[in-house]
Amino acid sequence: MPDFNPSDPNFARRVRSSFAKQQLMKTLDAKLIKIAAGEVHVELPYDLAWTQQNKHLHAGIITAIVDNACGYAAYTLMPATSAVLAVEFKINFLSPAKGEKFIAIGKVIKAGRTLTVCQGEVMACDNGEEKLIATMQSTIMAMVKKLKQK
Amino acid sequence: MPDFNPSDPNFARRVRSSFAKQQLMKTLDAKLIKIAAGEVHVELPYDLAWTQQNKHLHAGIITAIVDNACGYAAYTLMPATSAVLAVEFKINFLSPAKGEKFIAIGKVIKAGRTLTVCQGEVMACDNGEEKLIATMQSTIMAMVKKLKQK
Amino acid sequence: MPDFNPSDPNFARRVRSSFAKQQLMKTLDAKLIKIAAGEVHVELPYDLAWTQQNKHLHAGIITAIVDNACGYAAYTLMPATSAVLAVEFKINFLSPAKGEKFIAIGKVIKAGRTLTVCQGEVMACDNGEEKLIATMQSTIMAMVKKLKQK
Amino acid sequence: MPDFNPSDPNFARRVRSSFAKQQLMKTLDAKLIKIAAGEVHVELPYDLAWTQQNKHLHAGIITAIVDNACGYAAYTLMPATSAVLAVEFKINFLSPAKGEKFIAIGKVIKAGRTLTVCQGEVMACDNGEEKLIATMQSTIMAMVKKLKQK
Repeated sequence: MPDFNPSDPNFARRVRSSFAKQQLMKTLDAKLIKIAAGEVHVELPYDLAWTQQNKHLHAGIITAIVDNACGYAAYTLMPATSAVLAVEFKINFLSPAKGEKFIAIGKVIKAGRTLTVCQGEVMACDNGEEKLIATMQSTIMAMVKKLKQK
Repeated sequence: MPDFNPSDPNFARRVRSSFAKQQLMKTLDAKLIKIAAGEVHVELPYDLAWTQQNKHLHAGIITAIVDNACGYAAYTLMPATSAVLAVEFKINFLSPAKGEKFIAIGKVIKAGRTLTVCQGEVMACDNGEEKLIATMQSTIMAMVKKLKQK
Repeated sequence: MPDFNPSDPNFARRVRSSFAKQQLMKTLDAKLIKIAAGEVHVELPYDLAWTQQNKHLHAGIITAIVDNACGYAAYTLMPATSAVLAVEFKINFLSPAKGEKFIAIGKVIKAGRTLTVCQGEVMACDNGEEKLIATMQSTIMAMVKKLKQK
Repeated sequence: MPDFNPSDPNFARRVRSSFAKQQLMKTLDAKLIKIAAGEVHVELPYDLAWTQQNKHLHAGIITAIVDNACGYAAYTLMPATSAVLAVEFKINFLSPAKGEKFIAIGKVIKAGRTLTVCQGEVMACDNGEEKLIATMQSTIMAMVKKLKQK
């Protein structure tokens, strides 16, 4: 993993402030559990309300937390005045999303001036065991603040 | 678009039954508004509870409905005894998810014995205008029923 | 498909000129067979030199022509002074790449100021029949000319 | 990275034999430089014949070698009687493909009975320095030998 040098020393405060404005994260009771330069972790407790037909977490909800982990990992390295926008991502589902809680990990692979590329993983915590259930590759864009993204 | 010949004439009932078991769709108040051979549409009303930091729909929720539209489009063409599983997808976000309601459209591009490839689109309905806000390409797997997916 | 209004009326000349500089296209004997606003087609004859272990066209070569069809489709809509850069793409392989020639079709889905999203298809022409063998979704970036891309 | 237990102890011979049948690899003068359980490396020397308009390696050729690195990484873990088939992949281009040679690295993330998920990277070697220029996430399918893939 590359060694990053964030231009804004207050990146963690900026990430927390944007995350707190995401109503979906409140609705899901998702929490930021790690904010480092180029790496962010999001934790989500299981709830039947977010499940698919087999009572496992729905792919869209897994995607929501790992998209955020990647987007905010990219955001840690952006200038203080920028905003962050998801351009696209691809996700593979490796195992059923079965567990009491889920941890999404987003890491920056390459931080560019306009575009940042991240890799994400989702771990399911089931009876004290952690299992990799999804892997993401995503592209994130830095915007000037006037556009008011993230 | 190819002309499909579903092996199970009761595919619509099968799709409705699986969709009804997805607790997330109830939580979101999402509805199936079209079920045809190789094509399924899902409608979602806007709600502040599902938003990101700019009060637009969160990428994960957009993804949830178009993943379902694609997965169930694939499911219409599978044998009656099969189950359906999302292998992976890629989604591009084209415009902010702003509107009163959102329509996700999933269409089968190629139906194979094991794997089906779909394309999905999400339209935002804002003040009577429809706008394409996201486009997906996804791979879906047919499973034998014992595995109890979808 | 959207109705495009290219800012540079000489887009076809610009596409031809860049394509002619791609040594790989000469090596493969690939040709531009259509250049319209937001849509470009590339044709490739079969040659054993570009095959995988079953004597079908290699996935990388299929990818090369449809990446070009998409990239140049995006380039038709960019300002005369810009250059074009592939950010990322995703491709699904639907059937074996078997045939005498192959046609890659790239179409713009959304043209933005910085990023353009395209869909691509590859058809195999085998004994007078056309078959869809691959489908791509790609993101392309417009650069200022100083950077000297495409 | 997971600890793999290949069912076929002669996986390296099987990989070498399939790679040798790929005419494209001969044409490009690409070589297998590492074959381990769940991990394969492919090396490619620079040649003007494979370049795009800026004399850098074309995206399709980068893709060809990393698609192979991933496909053969998956193949190391498949049963002796199986064949391997690329289902789909997504690749991000991080930096221009500039250098004297290129090394593609494919690693298995999850090996399933039918589907295997891999991550790939391409390094450019330029004046004694290595630089990450592309990252891939791919899905590979194991087929019964009768179908005669790879």
